[in-house]
Amino acid sequence: MKIIKLQNATDLKRTKSQLQKLGLWTSVYENASETFLLSSDDSTVVQDEDILAIDGVESISTNKSPHPLMDRHPQTADFGGISIGGERPVLMAGPCSVESEAQIHESAAMVASVGATVLRGGCFKPRTNPYSFQGVGPEGLGWMREAANAHDLLVVTEAMSPTQVDIVGKYADIFQIGARNMQNFDLLHAVGRANMPVLLKRGLSSTLSEWLQAAEHILYSGASHVILCERGVRGFDGSTRFLFDLGAVAIIKHVHNLPIIADPSHATGRKDLIPHMGAAAMAAGADGLIIEAHPHPENACSDGPQQLDAEELQATARAWGFIS
Amino acid sequence: MKIIKLQNATDLKRTKSQLQKLGLWTSVYENASETFLLSSDDSTVVQDEDILAIDGVESISTNKSPHPLMDRHPQTADFGGISIGGERPVLMAGPCSVESEAQIHESAAMVASVGATVLRGGCFKPRTNPYSFQGVGPEGLGWMREAANAHDLLVVTEAMSPTQVDIVGKYADIFQIGARNMQNFDLLHAVGRANMPVLLKRGLSSTLSEWLQAAEHILYSGASHVILCERGVRGFDGSTRFLFDLGAVAIIKHVHNLPIIADPSHATGRKDLIPHMGAAAMAAGADGLIIEAHPHPENACSDGPQQLDAEELQATARAWGFIS
Amino acid sequence: MKIIKLQNATDLKRTKSQLQKLGLWTSVYENASETFLLSSDDSTVVQDEDILAIDGVESISTNKSPHPLMDRHPQTADFGGISIGGERPVLMAGPCSVESEAQIHESAAMVASVGATVLRGGCFKPRTNPYSFQGVGPEGLGWMREAANAHDLLVVTEAMSPTQVDIVGKYADIFQIGARNMQNFDLLHAVGRANMPVLLKRGLSSTLSEWLQAAEHILYSGASHVILCERGVRGFDGSTRFLFDLGAVAIIKHVHNLPIIADPSHATGRKDLIPHMGAAAMAAGADGLIIEAHPHPENACSDGPQQLDAEELQATARAWGFIS
Amino acid sequence: MKIIKLQNATDLKRTKSQLQKLGLWTSVYENASETFLLSSDDSTVVQDEDILAIDGVESISTNKSPHPLMDRHPQTADFGGISIGGERPVLMAGPCSVESEAQIHESAAMVASVGATVLRGGCFKPRTNPYSFQGVGPEGLGWMREAANAHDLLVVTEAMSPTQVDIVGKYADIFQIGARNMQNFDLLHAVGRANMPVLLKRGLSSTLSEWLQAAEHILYSGASHVILCERGVRGFDGSTRFLFDLGAVAIIKHVHNLPIIADPSHATGRKDLIPHMGAAAMAAGADGLIIEAHPHPENACSDGPQQLDAEELQATARAWGFIS
Repeated sequence: MKIIKLQNATDLKRTKSQLQKLGLWTSVYENASETFLLSSDDSTVVQDEDILAIDGVESISTNKSPHPLMDRHPQTADFGGISIGGERPVLMAGPCSVESEAQIHESAAMVASVGATVLRGGCFKPRTNPYSFQGVGPEGLGWMREAANAHDLLVVTEAMSPTQVDIVGKYADIFQIGARNMQNFDLLHAVGRANMPVLLKRGLSSTLSEWLQAAEHILYSGASHVILCERGVRGFDGSTRFLFDLGAVAIIKHVHNLPIIADPSHATGRKDLIPHMGAAAMAAGADGLIIEAHPHPENACSDGPQQLDAEELQATARAWGFIS
Repeated sequence: MKIIKLQNATDLKRTKSQLQKLGLWTSVYENASETFLLSSDDSTVVQDEDILAIDGVESISTNKSPHPLMDRHPQTADFGGISIGGERPVLMAGPCSVESEAQIHESAAMVASVGATVLRGGCFKPRTNPYSFQGVGPEGLGWMREAANAHDLLVVTEAMSPTQVDIVGKYADIFQIGARNMQNFDLLHAVGRANMPVLLKRGLSSTLSEWLQAAEHILYSGASHVILCERGVRGFDGSTRFLFDLGAVAIIKHVHNLPIIADPSHATGRKDLIPHMGAAAMAAGADGLIIEAHPHPENACSDGPQQLDAEELQATARAWGFIS
Repeated sequence: MKIIKLQNATDLKRTKSQLQKLGLWTSVYENASETFLLSSDDSTVVQDEDILAIDGVESISTNKSPHPLMDRHPQTADFGGISIGGERPVLMAGPCSVESEAQIHESAAMVASVGATVLRGGCFKPRTNPYSFQGVGPEGLGWMREAANAHDLLVVTEAMSPTQVDIVGKYADIFQIGARNMQNFDLLHAVGRANMPVLLKRGLSSTLSEWLQAAEHILYSGASHVILCERGVRGFDGSTRFLFDLGAVAIIKHVHNLPIIADPSHATGRKDLIPHMGAAAMAAGADGLIIEAHPHPENACSDGPQQLDAEELQATARAWGFIS
Repeated sequence: MKIIKLQNATDLKRTKSQLQKLGLWTSVYENASETFLLSSDDSTVVQDEDILAIDGVESISTNKSPHPLMDRHPQTADFGGISIGGERPVLMAGPCSVESEAQIHESAAMVASVGATVLRGGCFKPRTNPYSFQGVGPEGLGWMREAANAHDLLVVTEAMSPTQVDIVGKYADIFQIGARNMQNFDLLHAVGRANMPVLLKRGLSSTLSEWLQAAEHILYSGASHVILCERGVRGFDGSTRFLFDLGAVAIIKHVHNLPIIADPSHATGRKDLIPHMGAAAMAAGADGLIIEAHPHPENACSDGPQQLDAEELQATARAWGFIS
């Protein structure tokens, strides 16, 4: 929002109309001697000088950004030989969970062959239910690192707790913060202190401002880069697991000029929608995708129904242009 | 959902695992002598025969579709020389409101020049506030028809009330039902009886099932075609006017095989996002877009800040591939 | 929101702190020479004079209410011998649908015996599915009127379409506008012109401002009173049919000082919650309740599972204090 | 949900109608030889024997509860001389943040004088923004303990991280888990291992099932009691900070028979609504309330606008019946 103060005796209607032409939704606020136009948050972004150039505008007042470090974050996150936000979209793929040494090696080979440059997979798993598979634990990190090295892949994997940051940092290239931990501030500070890139998933009902402020916590604590990741928000229709908010992707990319990844696997929960929604996410502005793929989804310990098998992965990666 | 009954003495885990491979999320329901797997709505669509082929599956029970006519609706809506759902995406464009004869003629010329084949514009305007501009009324329908004819365009325009159906039907090629009227059942019946194509916008918090059932009301009353239109649902973040649900677009297109249009203008309310979100909608599966454009947005009586001017429209239509 | 302009050289922190004491959430907006505090909508309502009395405040700017007639609506709706918003809460009860002459007479006797003063029941039914029971139609209105008269009850019943307004107005004491028609503006205008009281249900995802503006449409067209009715909004948890927004009830009652009714039947869809949620609604500020009750819920043509039978109704009305 | 299998050749309509009378919403699922009725989650809770007693019902299949320990949790949480879920509602009150030794002593005196039995206050503060006040840290815990002891109060305070569990456990009587940490599973496990009572706030968009499963994590790890706390979910209307879901309170209390506390301070963010919404929460079934109160809200380091001062607290506690 911006508070736009009008000159006395100006033609309110004409000034409002000029602001409208720029794409600003405004409401009139006034008292006996002053008139203001308050622009709303869902307006097109307009530079202050373009507003001040309009006849009748006296001044603009704005509030300070709550995430100054994120505002200065580079447009691309360049590290480990990849560039997120650069010319080529990035594919991150792998199983939901690391399950065994053989499984993650097979997965790494599979995803490398379709153009992925980052291997995903969880060793510590945040699970809604305490009786579900909770991950193989730290042993999996070593398997994952070796599998990634064998295929020249980077590793992104989740730390769920400050106590896991050291060990995860030793094996991973990118920390992942899960949606349910987006505002686990002690964890944000701990991964930030590791001075590495962090993939920050959006919370299930987080506003963009809350998300950017969570990223600010991470940068403030020392991270080199934060890469935001849209993975669907809570919705009211059961046809998809979550509601994929691609408008958020477009805003992060085109308004905030920040690197952004999208996760069509968790957003939809459905293999039949993943190809379409991955393409849509990139059209909206995503700098890459993170998806779940498993060499044998029937054996997957978690999220089996949404994991692509080798054949599905290949067809999808081809449709997305990662391979030809 | 499907109720999948298992054979007695089957290996539950193995059967569940085979269903998981197909993309089905299932939960176990049982009593002393029977075991069922209930598949959830956010599962990949799988044919019954593929489920029955799995070892251990005894039978499948399903519930009857609440929208049998929509289930038989053709994949494309072909009329008036256009094909919605065919090979080429369709562009519908024009001002939010018809404001004058000159304005709608200028608009028609503008949108025809960028590849649009349907002219949009409202003569009767549903407005949140009673003191806002309520539309020029029936007179505008004639202006709109002439303007469209002059540029070889079809006309889509809204009927807000059963009493407007006759007059709108006389001038329009496609009835538009607005989001706030999606479950105005008397209106659905009235437009259905006109035996013409209907563009049915999704309600602000309607499930896909409610939306398809609203379409069923229309077909049941006699409409030739229903074209669904996603225009954003109510969200919790103020950065966009609504939350554009492109997962819904993908499901309507790729699961239900129905013609679907997307409206990035109302979904975002922001000119700086419309190009990106229109592209994303088509990538998700939209058969075309409906957008607001006005030759002089500064003079628009409604929705000025989200209407593209001639230059913006041209750049956007080019980016979308409607013109080269 | 209010734009609060601060005096130059004031102690911003101290002024903000004094506003905080009053219950105002404020954000700082500034430019080189001016400082403003913008108060948010979720702040306690504070009178302008109390803000102006604070050291450092120079002026307040507000925007014009979009519903001036509703702002002047009396705190109680008094008509037909009842007072909604007065000392005693009001009970409106009856079946979901009027089904036969016998059924509505039996219903009227049943609800009158537990202290209800208004008989509810639909003759025209808005149904999600076209193949569901659509209501008995106009014939039911006469049955309902006679049944109500026999037990000294008023009649509230729904008009779904402008064409039904005349006939409904002939038999009813209060028009009901359903949630799905809250922004069916032609209908709002038509019932308004009938110059009678109107019970306006909140739309499934309507903001309070949209709801009050819909009411404004009705008053603007001539209605004598509008009584708002909260019936639950769309939520994300399947345990209740809708999410009962009792904070909205409290705001309408205690901030806007308007008559407000709550509908725990539709909000929950569950007979086991209705007694508790009806009590909660009245504690929040509801001036009365509208609930579904049927002498034989097993035979109900619509909403059977949420309709109280005679025994349940009696126990519930007693718990709520309508009878002793 | 329950899968209700019907006997062959039964009268489907009559059986469905009897289930409807019990309050069950059901859908028909069938194949060539079998018919099922699937009951929905928003149905009244009905015992299996009552369903089996209905003519035409052959069997019922259910799925295993994902939270067996919570299902056996006692209806009241009795410890430290209080009983949550017992005859008398419990009041927990205190400042948002512990700010100084003097402040928390003054707060303790203030809340004890109005009938509170538990002192709240945060020493570690989860803050959306990294530049906001982050809490006084561990030193505050000792101040809080002494202040509580001086007035015969218990202490509830938040642990944000597994590393804080030991120190918080040393000073507090009840661990608080904040809404943003509801699915911070490592934290849930850590507080569970402390074998003390835990107050578990509901996540901002958590379903009841997710909430109960989070509680299961805590019990599974060893906690003596879990007390659920409803504090509002994310909504779409800016008039209140969150949408207070009192239907959830009623279900936890009356369907699950578990101790439940409600937090009208965070749910509304508005001092003018707290009295009404606290009363409504107790009417819905809350076993007590947790509210924010500060001796000098103008000086509060966090949440100042929603904290009651001494006078407001007294009036409110009196209205709620905690003092006479």
